[in-house]
Amino acid sequence: MRTGDAILVLNAGSSSIKFELFEATAGGPVSRYAGQVEGIGTGAPHFTARGADGAVLADRRWAEGGEGGAPADHASALGAVIAWLEGLPAPRPAIAAVGHRVVHGGPDLAAPVVVDAAVLARLRALVPLAPLHQPHNLAGIEAAAARFPGVPQVACFDTAFHRSHPWEADTFALPPEFHARGIRRYGFHGLSYEYIARRIAREDPALGQGRLVVAHLGNGASLCAIRAGRSVESTMGFTALDGLPMGTRCGQIDPGVLLHLMAAEGWDAARLAHLLYHESGLKGMSGLSQDVRVLEASGRPEAARALSYFCWRARREIGAMAAVLGGMDALVFTAGIGENAAGVRARICEGLEFLGVTLDPARNAAHAPEISAPGARVRVLVRATDEERMIAEHVMETLRGAG
Amino acid sequence: MRTGDAILVLNAGSSSIKFELFEATAGGPVSRYAGQVEGIGTGAPHFTARGADGAVLADRRWAEGGEGGAPADHASALGAVIAWLEGLPAPRPAIAAVGHRVVHGGPDLAAPVVVDAAVLARLRALVPLAPLHQPHNLAGIEAAAARFPGVPQVACFDTAFHRSHPWEADTFALPPEFHARGIRRYGFHGLSYEYIARRIAREDPALGQGRLVVAHLGNGASLCAIRAGRSVESTMGFTALDGLPMGTRCGQIDPGVLLHLMAAEGWDAARLAHLLYHESGLKGMSGLSQDVRVLEASGRPEAARALSYFCWRARREIGAMAAVLGGMDALVFTAGIGENAAGVRARICEGLEFLGVTLDPARNAAHAPEISAPGARVRVLVRATDEERMIAEHVMETLRGAG
Repeated sequence: MRTGDAILVLNAGSSSIKFELFEATAGGPVSRYAGQVEGIGTGAPHFTARGADGAVLADRRWAEGGEGGAPADHASALGAVIAWLEGLPAPRPAIAAVGHRVVHGGPDLAAPVVVDAAVLARLRALVPLAPLHQPHNLAGIEAAAARFPGVPQVACFDTAFHRSHPWEADTFALPPEFHARGIRRYGFHGLSYEYIARRIAREDPALGQGRLVVAHLGNGASLCAIRAGRSVESTMGFTALDGLPMGTRCGQIDPGVLLHLMAAEGWDAARLAHLLYHESGLKGMSGLSQDVRVLEASGRPEAARALSYFCWRARREIGAMAAVLGGMDALVFTAGIGENAAGVRARICEGLEFLGVTLDPARNAAHAPEISAPGARVRVLVRATDEERMIAEHVMETLRGAG
Repeated sequence: MRTGDAILVLNAGSSSIKFELFEATAGGPVSRYAGQVEGIGTGAPHFTARGADGAVLADRRWAEGGEGGAPADHASALGAVIAWLEGLPAPRPAIAAVGHRVVHGGPDLAAPVVVDAAVLARLRALVPLAPLHQPHNLAGIEAAAARFPGVPQVACFDTAFHRSHPWEADTFALPPEFHARGIRRYGFHGLSYEYIARRIAREDPALGQGRLVVAHLGNGASLCAIRAGRSVESTMGFTALDGLPMGTRCGQIDPGVLLHLMAAEGWDAARLAHLLYHESGLKGMSGLSQDVRVLEASGRPEAARALSYFCWRARREIGAMAAVLGGMDALVFTAGIGENAAGVRARICEGLEFLGVTLDPARNAAHAPEISAPGARVRVLVRATDEERMIAEHVMETLRGAG
């Protein structure tokens, strides 16, 4: 990988591909273009792209059932992205590597890997552990490998950062054979946490060696306890369902609730999964929306209760993370809610004074980078996460190592 | 209820009835006799009783398949208890009231109640919420009501103490209709927590107004966050399965594990319930025993791991309870493990120094009433719990109110 090489980062979801094009420089990857194709397979996909300055460079909708090559799958959506990149004015970026966000790396993959047939088979074997995400991630890899033969495809895992967990944080209280066959607390949002941990360490090397609790609060939400840059514990476990309540997911729930709905009311796995993944969380509790802004603006008591529960659970689990770390030097808010919802941040921190958390209300309202009161024992920070940049960094490091 | 009246306290489990006979005094109930019938329905039941000084007064086994009226159900087991009590030397206690431990009082019963037909029907409607315990509790009430017609039967609930929880601690992140139809975080071990809270308040009224985290660590295990004598949060939720790992129960587990075992491996509710209630926890993890003493004496790595996980989870959740309370004035260990396992207490407290917890190793090893180091910010106490006495107090208070 040489200075000036382009790195394409892909994040393939169920009906979308997000992309970002980075240029490799001596100082690390620099973003040049970013965008996405949404609505893949819906018959009415939507392509947008913007430059590094945020200017919209493309905005194309294909009409429902219309002609003109509307991308119907991940391969053709990737084709639309590539066609757009190839139409950019010279000097056109030469794509030297593709980095992929892959949700699940299983128990062993603790770092990014260059994908070959053996790795692909290994990742395919993990589909049962993440059936909603892993197949789309792999479809993105296959589409990119077909389009760029010979260009290295680097898989970066949401689970990898958490492989430093001690055994106690990696297991459930089940017989050991369950752990041996993969029923473990993998943890997720790892690319976001690793990005934040590195960023804090660059900004303040001493704090980077300290104890951080990072609150990734977005449509998915979790906490991570980090010591000296390494993940020690996370609220997400075997799946992306556990821990904090989320936009539409329940977070932690008594397993007895599932047993009761099965035994007393005849629910099956599919119905339970639909409830817990799609009809719970902020949206399910409020009956209104998973969008914090909508809930904050609503006068309905259910909306207020949903927010109150969200903040209560986050506060409770921050205490748990602090206990795992034996204390906390900084609390970092990130992702959509964490970066933008000042009211939620304030309510989460209310009552954490005993840990040394005290907010400065004006700074918090302004989404300042540091929102703790001057002299507070624990620094409270707000940072934008950037998983795509983390992937681009991983691509550079992985290929540097590969010569 | 007058001074000198006898109060019989019954705790009816699946194959046992524990009893304790108290005498009502102006200073509260005083224990006179206690004992149990174990092995009900096994064909080889075993009756034991002791006096207030601990002296064994009865020890009777019925031979397997033998004659001589071996109690085959709760009614006949209660009969054996009554026959023994009636054979005591004069002055024989006149039983003026019977107090019952009942696991589930549902969403509304926040205090003990005198059982009548309407209450019994109400308690029977709760059987689906606690199918392993509630039927036996009710069998005990029916047996005692038949044996002592006209004597008040007072039901005391393991859930009642937790009805002071704020809404956020009472719910899951599910649509509101689930809460409305009883899918709530009831919490359990309430009689133990209430006993401890009252005892602390009697010993030290100022501390009784403070913030306590009580660790009830026995074969069942949970934590309770108590402020000014009232329960604010508990680690147990809808069932006795949630929260801390226990003797054979898993405690908190990602609901995705259940969905995975169902969807990918075809497990049904009965198989899951058997795993999570009976084959998990300390026994399941160690493959050896649920007895902490056995695990501590074992050289096997699985035993060490099970203990390590137990302590990790307890420490993590103590941090969560402290966050709910906004700090902690005292940590109280109780129940079998909490009262007797100095090593477990030490390992749980290791790393909680940031909360102000510092143990005195010698006091801890001696199971002293106060095991924190002199001058430590948080007092760490060891207290024997006494749910039967709590029930007897409730009986006196309930019947005093009733005239």
